[in-house]
Amino acid sequence: MRVLILGVDGYIGWPLALRLIQRGHEVYGADSFFTRRRVREVGSDSLIPIKSMQERIEHLKKRFSSTVNFFRGDVSNASFIYRLVEEIRPDAVVHLAEQRSAPYSMIDLKHATVTMEKNIISTLSLIYAAKDIRPDMHILKLGTMGEYGTPNVEIPEGFFEVEYRGRKDVLPFPRNASSWYHWSKVHDSNNLMFANRVWGLSVTDVMQGVVYGTRTADIQDRSEFTRFDIDEVWGTALNRFCAQAVGGLPITPYGKGGQTRGFLSLEDSITCLTIGLEKPPERGEYRVLNQFDQYYSINELALTVREVYAKEFGGNAEIMHVDNPRVEKEEHFYKPVSEKLRKMGYSPSGDLKHDLKTILTDVERYRQRVDKLKKVIMPRTQWK
Amino acid sequence: MRVLILGVDGYIGWPLALRLIQRGHEVYGADSFFTRRRVREVGSDSLIPIKSMQERIEHLKKRFSSTVNFFRGDVSNASFIYRLVEEIRPDAVVHLAEQRSAPYSMIDLKHATVTMEKNIISTLSLIYAAKDIRPDMHILKLGTMGEYGTPNVEIPEGFFEVEYRGRKDVLPFPRNASSWYHWSKVHDSNNLMFANRVWGLSVTDVMQGVVYGTRTADIQDRSEFTRFDIDEVWGTALNRFCAQAVGGLPITPYGKGGQTRGFLSLEDSITCLTIGLEKPPERGEYRVLNQFDQYYSINELALTVREVYAKEFGGNAEIMHVDNPRVEKEEHFYKPVSEKLRKMGYSPSGDLKHDLKTILTDVERYRQRVDKLKKVIMPRTQWK
Repeated sequence: MRVLILGVDGYIGWPLALRLIQRGHEVYGADSFFTRRRVREVGSDSLIPIKSMQERIEHLKKRFSSTVNFFRGDVSNASFIYRLVEEIRPDAVVHLAEQRSAPYSMIDLKHATVTMEKNIISTLSLIYAAKDIRPDMHILKLGTMGEYGTPNVEIPEGFFEVEYRGRKDVLPFPRNASSWYHWSKVHDSNNLMFANRVWGLSVTDVMQGVVYGTRTADIQDRSEFTRFDIDEVWGTALNRFCAQAVGGLPITPYGKGGQTRGFLSLEDSITCLTIGLEKPPERGEYRVLNQFDQYYSINELALTVREVYAKEFGGNAEIMHVDNPRVEKEEHFYKPVSEKLRKMGYSPSGDLKHDLKTILTDVERYRQRVDKLKKVIMPRTQWK
Repeated sequence: MRVLILGVDGYIGWPLALRLIQRGHEVYGADSFFTRRRVREVGSDSLIPIKSMQERIEHLKKRFSSTVNFFRGDVSNASFIYRLVEEIRPDAVVHLAEQRSAPYSMIDLKHATVTMEKNIISTLSLIYAAKDIRPDMHILKLGTMGEYGTPNVEIPEGFFEVEYRGRKDVLPFPRNASSWYHWSKVHDSNNLMFANRVWGLSVTDVMQGVVYGTRTADIQDRSEFTRFDIDEVWGTALNRFCAQAVGGLPITPYGKGGQTRGFLSLEDSITCLTIGLEKPPERGEYRVLNQFDQYYSINELALTVREVYAKEFGGNAEIMHVDNPRVEKEEHFYKPVSEKLRKMGYSPSGDLKHDLKTILTDVERYRQRVDKLKKVIMPRTQWK
């Protein structure tokens, strides 16, 4: 299959490219390197050193017979994405090229605007490139479980049958996100659903949980590492907790820590995306997949990191609840459904404690870099 | 009350300014004149000639002791909207300054992009200007009943209680719009709902039906006319049907014509917006108002225009169903609720046939201009 990965330089994009090449697909990639720049903008860096795209490409050539065919550019630039689709004529496009940090989007109006504009216009431009040039192409778009918020009812996969005042319909499940970033993903989902309705585009809309981990089965040496962010803007809960433990900082659940979310390992994220690509939707189908392994509360995760760090490394990590910089429920019902991917063949690869041991081992290896990044790990960006 | 109207030069903005001045409010207005330019862009013009903003301001000075304090600029420009809120310190801002044509948004990627960007960023910038400068200010934002689409259940005012798999919650009613324009309004609504949740902004989100008419009670002479668009891009169903009848063109329901929508007269639109302003939400409330008088199918409207035109003007208008350029259900259940405004004091001002007589009289007066605009009345912009 000929696959174009938008955002191929990112946390997920890069290991996805490795996996797809490994599996014999023809892989094209695009990136603007926005994330590398934006992470530096907040004074941070990937904890695990990563290679330049040029080095990555050269490395792949040595390891495999093929590599990523790379194009540098911004996919919210219409002429760039049109040129890509025209030249490559991909069977599938994986769209990972969006601003992906909730705190970044909440810094101020400028960051909110950049998030809304870049994210929405990139998806819109991809929609039109598909419609105008390659309408049968499968668009696999990365969204987030955060689009749904935390309703007091079960969360289905995209749609639900509802009875209201004596009548029934199958409707999109109401979205209720909690940052401009998350809302930009909701807007994308809505725009994709509409593009499917009007032009019959084939879409997989992935509602992904929070991803953790430093590794996939394909990452064999240091040249193959993907970025690993641990600062308060770009790092996500579990990855940051590991860095806090290793750095001798307290592990910091926000507020009460009862916030519950779906999580999955990087390995499982790549597996699920690959399944989504290799088992595409019907032609003209708009398919929503809830993509996560388990759901955990932030408190459970903090305790598990502390426990694994103590048992495997003899470390002693303190847990310190800090004022919640976000506006969100800190105790709530949470029961999202994730059935479709399992029916398509996904079976979770590991268990949390085992995965944490691997992460903590990799983070320990870069302990000196943790020390250097200490000042950007604690929360500063306020929602309020 | 000190009110700032964004989009004061428009179809609704201008008569709203007249009404508010009439009622003794202090009125400020802003406009970029985008609509005037964009209507010319598609080869059209307001059927009823309108004065320049300068002439409008001078005229008001003569008729009333006060006038619109006008600022020229684009509200998607953050520094402009910040300056307005800083200088005026309004009690309420009415946001009408968005690209308002569904067909315009569907022309191509460029028009889709401009609609998404300008609409979303203008509302986002207004949100931040309120939060940063005047958090108690009431934001009254114009959305559309089209945000809801045509579900097979009743449409409540914004939220509904839902029971799903044995549990209950009050959730945002799922939106399901049918053009990029309509979706941009959904995105705005979601962003406003979130801004209310995070920063406690006071918001009225108006889901307005299709507006028809040439007049309000305040429009007494030709200097006071508001724009009246009849072309396929900028004109809405009923206004266009009147121009078709007068121009000797067939009245053109799209497809089967069973599409049903909420409608209200311009007079009622201005009345409802005034009620919304004079009876603001509670501080920190996000209030959704479904704003329309009656709902009609397109076929009913076509027949009514034909009937009134025959009875009052002796004319003979043909009804011709044309291929639907849009993607929408042409026969469907439709039962939206509109109770809140009535409880706040709205009572519909007229009846459709009486209103149509007034519109047709005004259109007859500009019969020569109808002839000039004939080439842009019939549908050309295709969704497919």
